[in-house]
Amino acid sequence: MLKNMKLIDLEREKMKSYQEFSKVELEDRYNDLLMQYNQFKNKNLSLNMARGKPGATQLSLSNDMLDVITSHDELGEYRNYGLLDGIDEAKDFFGDILNVSRDEIIVAGNSSLTLMFDQISRGYTHGYLGEAPWCRLETVKFICPVPGYDRHFAITEHFHIEMIPVPMIDQDLDVDTIVNLINSDPAIKGMWACPRYSNSTGYTFSKKSVEALAQVKPAANDFRFFWDNAYFVHHLNNDGDELLDLFAELKKYNNEKYIFEFFSTSKVTFPGSGVAVMACSAENKVDVLKHMNVQTIGGDKINQLRHVKYFKEPSGLVEHMKKHAALLKPKFDIVIKILNEKLKNVPNCYWTNPNGGYFISLFAPKGTAKKIVQLCKDAGVILTDAGAAYPYGQDPEDSHIRIAPSFPAENEIEEATKLLAICTELAFIETFL
Amino acid sequence: MLKNMKLIDLEREKMKSYQEFSKVELEDRYNDLLMQYNQFKNKNLSLNMARGKPGATQLSLSNDMLDVITSHDELGEYRNYGLLDGIDEAKDFFGDILNVSRDEIIVAGNSSLTLMFDQISRGYTHGYLGEAPWCRLETVKFICPVPGYDRHFAITEHFHIEMIPVPMIDQDLDVDTIVNLINSDPAIKGMWACPRYSNSTGYTFSKKSVEALAQVKPAANDFRFFWDNAYFVHHLNNDGDELLDLFAELKKYNNEKYIFEFFSTSKVTFPGSGVAVMACSAENKVDVLKHMNVQTIGGDKINQLRHVKYFKEPSGLVEHMKKHAALLKPKFDIVIKILNEKLKNVPNCYWTNPNGGYFISLFAPKGTAKKIVQLCKDAGVILTDAGAAYPYGQDPEDSHIRIAPSFPAENEIEEATKLLAICTELAFIETFL
Repeated sequence: MLKNMKLIDLEREKMKSYQEFSKVELEDRYNDLLMQYNQFKNKNLSLNMARGKPGATQLSLSNDMLDVITSHDELGEYRNYGLLDGIDEAKDFFGDILNVSRDEIIVAGNSSLTLMFDQISRGYTHGYLGEAPWCRLETVKFICPVPGYDRHFAITEHFHIEMIPVPMIDQDLDVDTIVNLINSDPAIKGMWACPRYSNSTGYTFSKKSVEALAQVKPAANDFRFFWDNAYFVHHLNNDGDELLDLFAELKKYNNEKYIFEFFSTSKVTFPGSGVAVMACSAENKVDVLKHMNVQTIGGDKINQLRHVKYFKEPSGLVEHMKKHAALLKPKFDIVIKILNEKLKNVPNCYWTNPNGGYFISLFAPKGTAKKIVQLCKDAGVILTDAGAAYPYGQDPEDSHIRIAPSFPAENEIEEATKLLAICTELAFIETFL
Repeated sequence: MLKNMKLIDLEREKMKSYQEFSKVELEDRYNDLLMQYNQFKNKNLSLNMARGKPGATQLSLSNDMLDVITSHDELGEYRNYGLLDGIDEAKDFFGDILNVSRDEIIVAGNSSLTLMFDQISRGYTHGYLGEAPWCRLETVKFICPVPGYDRHFAITEHFHIEMIPVPMIDQDLDVDTIVNLINSDPAIKGMWACPRYSNSTGYTFSKKSVEALAQVKPAANDFRFFWDNAYFVHHLNNDGDELLDLFAELKKYNNEKYIFEFFSTSKVTFPGSGVAVMACSAENKVDVLKHMNVQTIGGDKINQLRHVKYFKEPSGLVEHMKKHAALLKPKFDIVIKILNEKLKNVPNCYWTNPNGGYFISLFAPKGTAKKIVQLCKDAGVILTDAGAAYPYGQDPEDSHIRIAPSFPAENEIEEATKLLAICTELAFIETFL
């Protein structure tokens, strides 16, 4: 990943070259880009880089999982009602990955998003561990590191929770600001976090940040980190980013009740047919199950077993992720290569180069992101809406664009990224003309 | 099913024989029963007739479903995110069973209980079709025909909804009372209903009752029938009970917005690994999906396809249910036969003899149900808690006991029911002594 100092040097370099352009040269450049843009338009592209969907070849990596449970297997009571918090095999399997014990994990249905929604819904309707339900409070707030994940923000918006965006700085959390907020404001009941290969920057929270979070003294007893480890095992390179285990750190300070941690196999096996889990303190688990017991008889135990049998050991899942990386890395490389080539001269424009996850963030020159996304759309390439990575869809700098290169084919990514680069420079020059 | 007049005749018959007993004869009978009871105790039974769990042989009926989707199948995008309301094949399949169109059905995850919980949760947090969220109202009430289903009542209790029990009369809904309540009280936002082979009596709502429900003019715009068709296809005999289609009837009066109908394959294939659906008007569906879209990316589409491929046609599912009936009917017959033999002389004691579903209701002499359940428990047979079929667990007559004969083996059911009969007569005689 680029280091911040380098970014600043790069910006100086870029500024110089653009400042050297005469008005005429700028117009020439603009007209040249416009011609290229129109050539793209004539191709009648229809590409989608909006969502973090695995590509078809990735999905096929897990096809054999469909064969591991057949009518010949002795499934016994796993075919029946019961086992609200999941089968022991799955609790052990995912507990091993997340470094928690059986009484600190709930293995559930097919969606960690649902687990997060339901957990916030429970806070809203009933409250945590005897605290007041949030629907009875005047104001409830969540801290939202930005750029973040639009589906997180959609949940908090749905429950009328005020979102406090806290911009990432130096490719990390602004942890001082965050800890101050948590420790001082009793209306702050939660913080969204995607700690490793964050959606949508790909940044991983630093050791220093996690250590600081672990030592919070929340003003609200019912404050929780919504620790969405969606990309926990989703490295693109062999030497993936280190991430300190917040749950383990919290335990050092008797703070373990402040976390709900989420994980799923949606981007390991099949989205929609995967297994989602939540880890939390034993005390929280008892509280959560009390509510879950009214809502469901439990997740799909056969599918839980299907996953455990398929991977055999957690190491099997880790190995499986290397196959995903082999398919994803070239796609990320194409995007990075083209952005490096085409946008190196555009000032105030930079992008992330993550070691994992599903997204690259492009920070376009201020005030151009909406325009760029629209230009791309008009030429047949759908990107995530500008602003989507911010609460209420409002990027105050109108700069951020999330790039999701997993789904399209490599040649399509190349086309789409070239178009994106053209649109970015076009939109930038337009601010001068 | 016994007709009401017959029940009354039977009661007269019973009364006579017991009235003819002298005090000494009663004591002799009591001591004889006590001896039989203690013999049961010495058997160290450990049986459970508490829940409507399918038995192992029933589960095995669907084992071949585990083979219908393998790695060789072309599943395409069904392995990926998307299709919030389910795959078209499943919408058509279940839509055909429930007599609704694609835009009136949502095919979801593994649990209709979750669909019901979530739908009530949405009423509580957001309200239906623009009406006020129930959490903002002073009082919200649901009509609860009793005896009913404890998990229904657990949901409404969870959301602080006041439950109004309306006893079944003449083996049917007390539909006049119910319609009057719905039409007059704007605090009444819903009614629980298990219309065919009701949990826990096995009664099916009559044509007359459904016709009356269809013509409601609710005082509350956001009133809904929670029409839980859990046992819709679960006949025990070839000539199952007729049930009028409430959704279709409601349409005749432009009342179709007043229903949420639920169905699942939990007791068709595998509980926990089945498919649950909700049917509702197109207008309601749009409203529901707006909320669901924040909560989930959708149900397990591969499992939806697995079900459709396994049954091929709705008629395949209907045929499959005949195999369940062949296994269940003998179990129900054992219970009925023993109750007929052993309790025919106990006054104010009667039981249902349903044509389908999972439960038999025993109405023991008033004031004895709790005692009977405790006696059975002390001898190693777990029954559903007395009162469970009533809101807040309160059976005002302390009479009702739900018998769930599906799970134990036939010889176990025989033992358990004989014990139940002994305990019932014991508890009854104790009220004299």
